[in-house]
Amino acid sequence: MTEDELIAAISDIVGTPGQAVKLGIGDDAALWQPSRSRRSVISTDMLVEGLHFELDAMSREDVGWRAMAANASDLAAMGARPVLATVALGLPASTSLGDVLELYRGLAACAAGAKLAIVGGDVSRSSALTIAITVVGEVRASDVKTRAGGRPGDVVAVTGALGAARAGLELTRGRVGIREDLEAAALLAFRRPEPRLAEGRFLAASRNVNAMMDCSDGLSTDLSRLCGASHCGAALERIPVADSARAVAEQRGEDPECFALAGGEDFELLTAIRPRAFENLAGRYRRRFGRELLRVGVLGPESGITWNGAPLERSGWDHFA
Amino acid sequence: MTEDELIAAISDIVGTPGQAVKLGIGDDAALWQPSRSRRSVISTDMLVEGLHFELDAMSREDVGWRAMAANASDLAAMGARPVLATVALGLPASTSLGDVLELYRGLAACAAGAKLAIVGGDVSRSSALTIAITVVGEVRASDVKTRAGGRPGDVVAVTGALGAARAGLELTRGRVGIREDLEAAALLAFRRPEPRLAEGRFLAASRNVNAMMDCSDGLSTDLSRLCGASHCGAALERIPVADSARAVAEQRGEDPECFALAGGEDFELLTAIRPRAFENLAGRYRRRFGRELLRVGVLGPESGITWNGAPLERSGWDHFA
Repeated sequence: MTEDELIAAISDIVGTPGQAVKLGIGDDAALWQPSRSRRSVISTDMLVEGLHFELDAMSREDVGWRAMAANASDLAAMGARPVLATVALGLPASTSLGDVLELYRGLAACAAGAKLAIVGGDVSRSSALTIAITVVGEVRASDVKTRAGGRPGDVVAVTGALGAARAGLELTRGRVGIREDLEAAALLAFRRPEPRLAEGRFLAASRNVNAMMDCSDGLSTDLSRLCGASHCGAALERIPVADSARAVAEQRGEDPECFALAGGEDFELLTAIRPRAFENLAGRYRRRFGRELLRVGVLGPESGITWNGAPLERSGWDHFA
Repeated sequence: MTEDELIAAISDIVGTPGQAVKLGIGDDAALWQPSRSRRSVISTDMLVEGLHFELDAMSREDVGWRAMAANASDLAAMGARPVLATVALGLPASTSLGDVLELYRGLAACAAGAKLAIVGGDVSRSSALTIAITVVGEVRASDVKTRAGGRPGDVVAVTGALGAARAGLELTRGRVGIREDLEAAALLAFRRPEPRLAEGRFLAASRNVNAMMDCSDGLSTDLSRLCGASHCGAALERIPVADSARAVAEQRGEDPECFALAGGEDFELLTAIRPRAFENLAGRYRRRFGRELLRVGVLGPESGITWNGAPLERSGWDHFA
């Protein structure tokens, strides 16, 4: 059973939601309609110690930051303005009050940067530290972008180079050593990822962006999800590899592009853009953010993803595969 | 460290939310303002196997139902109309697809009855089955009831007799045997509790209801929270004990009132009502719902809760005490 199969089976049981719900299970977030012109966006993520993070690789403050960033990234992927968050914590019996507050300092720091108000939640005992966050945002009805709007011919682009978070993870495991400045960049990407909220709202406001999602499970997995939802395929042309990821991959004797393709939690945005509008949008993006909107390939009519002409295996993260 | 102390320390770190958030950490749910006259309500609960439920005492379908009911009850406590829910599941490696779908059938059945659309969520591995649900509802700004509005002199009332869910729990543990019809009632209260959504909206619409919350951790604990938020105390006069709870308590040689006071998860609503309006409101409630709005005591100016003239210990559930 893969995670995607599980979600499909769950969707069958849950059924079709009523009229106020504009988008249900299966995208980065769900949508409902509190008023005619507005959409509210909601998304939930659960992180479990030992599976999503290790407490010997990062501080509780970093764990909190990253958990909140992962959720804020789902709002970014919908082009939404962050509004609020709730936090449910499962705490092992060994957790001290100081531990909880350290975790919360990370949650609160990231939330403050994203303008998310933490408004409530729950605390419970559990065997491993467990963090379930729900975030709510708002977006203009006309700006909503989902995974499903991609069309053959669209340019596939990402908001930044990939693989840095995975490089940071490898570095915390002490298996590799790279140049000091690259190490610092990788550790920052891993421990304190910045959700692309402003970029998401900028891209969502463009009529030429047909589909958008965040890269949380690795480009190979996430692009395959975007293609599945959009009923098309894709040809990858080049993989933008973060410098730190290239250094770590080379040290490990791995192909840097494969390393970056499989590396999750970069939280860059993955978009499908009308081909004739791409250059102009990329130029406006560069002037606005001082960084590149990076073309990685093109959508095609036939299902499946190719890279260098050969079929690409999904190599990203799947909790259930 | 008690749960309430932990929440207070967390509130300090999180700080005061911005203007759109009308009610933050500490009540049954938080509130924000998607439009001028409307309030959206959000609440999150986490349930962990072995702590909140045992899989040998109830089916996964019952576990799902009860988890959703507990969350819907938080909306009832705010007088809100249910809108949607997200579900984050932590699944042990031994969980089969059939197990997940059985759980989801219970979640979906309760959600359908409450008119909550399940719109998304997350699935993850974890060591014990963990269910974190977030629910969103809507309420007219003028109908919002919190825990904090109670005033000295208010009549304290509950929407039903207490202790049946605890009686059901004891019965599943096989420690007692009671009359068959009482046993059936207790097991139903424990496995398939009905959130008081219609009752919550009815009470919320009355200007004479000053405070409202749900009884999820036992009347002694929950009334003490209402009193704390409302800066007052209370004198309990009588405890309405469910017939099944009385039978189980007597079999165990326990005082039925104490048994009911400490029994959580009945999901009845606890309200503080202007004294001069109580009789009229209770009459309308009886005609509308065919059941009694049960007077249990009165709020007073001095902190603390008394019963039969003596101070009452908090005997309900606290995960951290």
